[in-house]
Amino acid sequence: MLRFTTAGESHGQALVGVLEGIPAGLPLLAEHIDEQLKRRQQGYGRGRRMQIEQDAVELLSGVRAGETIGSPIAMLIRNRDWKNWQETMDPAPRPEDPKRKRAVTRVRPGHADLTGLLKYDRVDARDILERASARETTARVAIAAVCRRFLAEFGVRIGSHVVQLGDVSTTRPEPMPDDINAAADGSPLRTLDAEAEQRMIARIDAVKADGNTLGGIAEVVATGVCVGLGSHTAWDPKLDGRIGGNG
Amino acid sequence: MLRFTTAGESHGQALVGVLEGIPAGLPLLAEHIDEQLKRRQQGYGRGRRMQIEQDAVELLSGVRAGETIGSPIAMLIRNRDWKNWQETMDPAPRPEDPKRKRAVTRVRPGHADLTGLLKYDRVDARDILERASARETTARVAIAAVCRRFLAEFGVRIGSHVVQLGDVSTTRPEPMPDDINAAADGSPLRTLDAEAEQRMIARIDAVKADGNTLGGIAEVVATGVCVGLGSHTAWDPKLDGRIGGNG
Amino acid sequence: MLRFTTAGESHGQALVGVLEGIPAGLPLLAEHIDEQLKRRQQGYGRGRRMQIEQDAVELLSGVRAGETIGSPIAMLIRNRDWKNWQETMDPAPRPEDPKRKRAVTRVRPGHADLTGLLKYDRVDARDILERASARETTARVAIAAVCRRFLAEFGVRIGSHVVQLGDVSTTRPEPMPDDINAAADGSPLRTLDAEAEQRMIARIDAVKADGNTLGGIAEVVATGVCVGLGSHTAWDPKLDGRIGGNG
Amino acid sequence: MLRFTTAGESHGQALVGVLEGIPAGLPLLAEHIDEQLKRRQQGYGRGRRMQIEQDAVELLSGVRAGETIGSPIAMLIRNRDWKNWQETMDPAPRPEDPKRKRAVTRVRPGHADLTGLLKYDRVDARDILERASARETTARVAIAAVCRRFLAEFGVRIGSHVVQLGDVSTTRPEPMPDDINAAADGSPLRTLDAEAEQRMIARIDAVKADGNTLGGIAEVVATGVCVGLGSHTAWDPKLDGRIGGNG
Repeated sequence: MLRFTTAGESHGQALVGVLEGIPAGLPLLAEHIDEQLKRRQQGYGRGRRMQIEQDAVELLSGVRAGETIGSPIAMLIRNRDWKNWQETMDPAPRPEDPKRKRAVTRVRPGHADLTGLLKYDRVDARDILERASARETTARVAIAAVCRRFLAEFGVRIGSHVVQLGDVSTTRPEPMPDDINAAADGSPLRTLDAEAEQRMIARIDAVKADGNTLGGIAEVVATGVCVGLGSHTAWDPKLDGRIGGNG
Repeated sequence: MLRFTTAGESHGQALVGVLEGIPAGLPLLAEHIDEQLKRRQQGYGRGRRMQIEQDAVELLSGVRAGETIGSPIAMLIRNRDWKNWQETMDPAPRPEDPKRKRAVTRVRPGHADLTGLLKYDRVDARDILERASARETTARVAIAAVCRRFLAEFGVRIGSHVVQLGDVSTTRPEPMPDDINAAADGSPLRTLDAEAEQRMIARIDAVKADGNTLGGIAEVVATGVCVGLGSHTAWDPKLDGRIGGNG
Repeated sequence: MLRFTTAGESHGQALVGVLEGIPAGLPLLAEHIDEQLKRRQQGYGRGRRMQIEQDAVELLSGVRAGETIGSPIAMLIRNRDWKNWQETMDPAPRPEDPKRKRAVTRVRPGHADLTGLLKYDRVDARDILERASARETTARVAIAAVCRRFLAEFGVRIGSHVVQLGDVSTTRPEPMPDDINAAADGSPLRTLDAEAEQRMIARIDAVKADGNTLGGIAEVVATGVCVGLGSHTAWDPKLDGRIGGNG
Repeated sequence: MLRFTTAGESHGQALVGVLEGIPAGLPLLAEHIDEQLKRRQQGYGRGRRMQIEQDAVELLSGVRAGETIGSPIAMLIRNRDWKNWQETMDPAPRPEDPKRKRAVTRVRPGHADLTGLLKYDRVDARDILERASARETTARVAIAAVCRRFLAEFGVRIGSHVVQLGDVSTTRPEPMPDDINAAADGSPLRTLDAEAEQRMIARIDAVKADGNTLGGIAEVVATGVCVGLGSHTAWDPKLDGRIGGNG
């Protein structure tokens, strides 16, 4: 069975992902993963961070001579900005400077800051937000890239595109492009409707000026999937529940 | 940690639910569970089955003298219609009648019939639909009734109501009723908007005449919940993921 | 994946076992299970209980017309002595008799009584010992009987015999009998060394007269097993760890 | 709940351990872990490897300013010999040298080599033995060191000593030393019986000359443990099963 774990703070030394259960003998190169990490860093209206980081994976284990060997695949993705954050995020105590650097004491609405401070009994919200961060998804993208590589052996292909942003809906192209990701990656908003995209961008710029953000809906399409994933026999293996639970 | 399992076919002898991890010393009566089982059997436009069954739980284990004792709580809910289905659903083979009774060979769209037949390599879709059935939720309602009883000790109350059916949306009452379930149970559609309800009923009747069904949205409201359920620290303990995954 | 749960008190109404993950299409009769339940009730020096109970399984779900259908297999084994224990073990409160019947307040050394009372905050050790009882294994034997039936399809056969009791060791027969269980079941102590058995019986009688018991070692032999069960790749799938953990 | 994962090959770039569930606010320094890593590298008759490696942990995440913050603790322990093994163990393919370096094609009895080759369908047993290696325990010792640090907050102390090696048994000191580990670490075989130790060493030297090894028994003693770890209520939370299963 596949299982995975991630670790790492947003401005820590590195992000770590460990994936267990991939069979031996799968051809796997760092390039397969870096390609997906790069795709993650694109997009309109995203933070400055995306320009700083150019993520590259280091395969620490589980891969030898370009092939998996069955053991856990540990992946390290260094935070390039670490040198500027080491003082703030150092695991070792710094007695000469008892006050923590860059402490965050004003919690942000809509974030895990306040809940995290209460649950974990912290005073500096940085202890929470460093982990409750979009940067955490980097390790998951790396893990998913290995799974994607594995599924490709069986002809399974996964693509996604944005179908709604705020109140702007898209019209689906007819027929859908053969390679959805290739088509969507050509758009800064990853949508397949160029006309709607213009209105989306206008909406983003407008709410950004107000200091606000927008939600949306993305559609994920998997082709070549075999019949019978999930099961009706119990409450927890149902496929929609597993997808809804990210698990 | 809490964990639970359900078993039982829709027209089998009984449904079974096992709940583990409820602490000892919780006052618990069969009535607490039957009350929720009864609530489950109400509602406009539901099947004839609801009239046949009047569910009553038998507490087989884990409860003594009206209190939990810490061991697994096994619950049995008999299917009252079993006598009419025993021949069809008997676990023992019936060599004198090699053809199965009431075999289902026309799979229904939108159901697990076809996928289940392929995945489990069956020829009679009854082997699938008997488990992929709304009746399975009976055991989950029984399990949830125990959890509800447990949460009540901490002042946590959970209520739900229908906020959309097909294209009919509701207006939320202002303020919300103190006991949402009591208010919603008074409506055949479990909605708090009497005006919208009339339109929902008209829509149900119309699509039913076409041999169709409607989807909808229900809102679940929990009050008295402590801060910090779930966690931001990993991909799987996030609260929305756990709720989305029914787990 | 296979998973299972058991429930039920020693003098409660019934024992319950639920087994999930057995594929559809496995021929399975109640007799397959009852045969193993009967084997469980044999043996020299065991309690009077064994004579009272003659266990018989009721297959509540997951089996139809003599074949599994892929859904959870719920099994019920009634406690025949229930009528004599209903007052003591009734899940409902009995207000007319506030003191519990047959309360146990002298904890037994070497049992879970004391630890259980402290952990679960009970005053009557019956709340603990009813579950921490050899009778609980009945449900596990029923579950294992289904697994045994499944493994037989692949030519895997599992047998066991006692190789040591107290300080009495056995000599292994050379060669081992083809059907270890058939041979061992012929012995009241389930040993394959008739000479050692006489000394074991003498030892049991001696310690029993002192109000004591004896430990021992049983060997379980599985034949026809495929190569590669378990895995070296992580700490938890190792086969000896899984066997040692009963999991 | 605590959970952990390890990754890393014996001669790979590094070993990785990830521990999740340690509460925030625990004082934790790399020294706490290094001290246990050093203890792991002692002992009579162990391999040359122990002299090469002087393990030091890098805390990649989950710790800030000398305190845990609640997020996963990722630990990296580099293999100092990596420079000599990079060609052999490189994750990237080396097309110029299609034959793998240092391939192992003679499987060793008593090791995972043969089973692993068959299960994972490999031809070079190095793909197996690099993971099925005592070096894997390094990451587990690091993880356990954090748990040990955590338990120390509650006055729980864990010590161990060798009580048997081959056929040489020890006599327990009376009373046991207050700090068992401190006493045992003073012995090359980690036994508290100096006289037996001499005989153990003689036995090791003798079998080593024959190209053989010896098994033994170690006793682990935990003091300050609260009542009620584990539970009698189900088959899997029983404490002895969890210890036996390393889980």
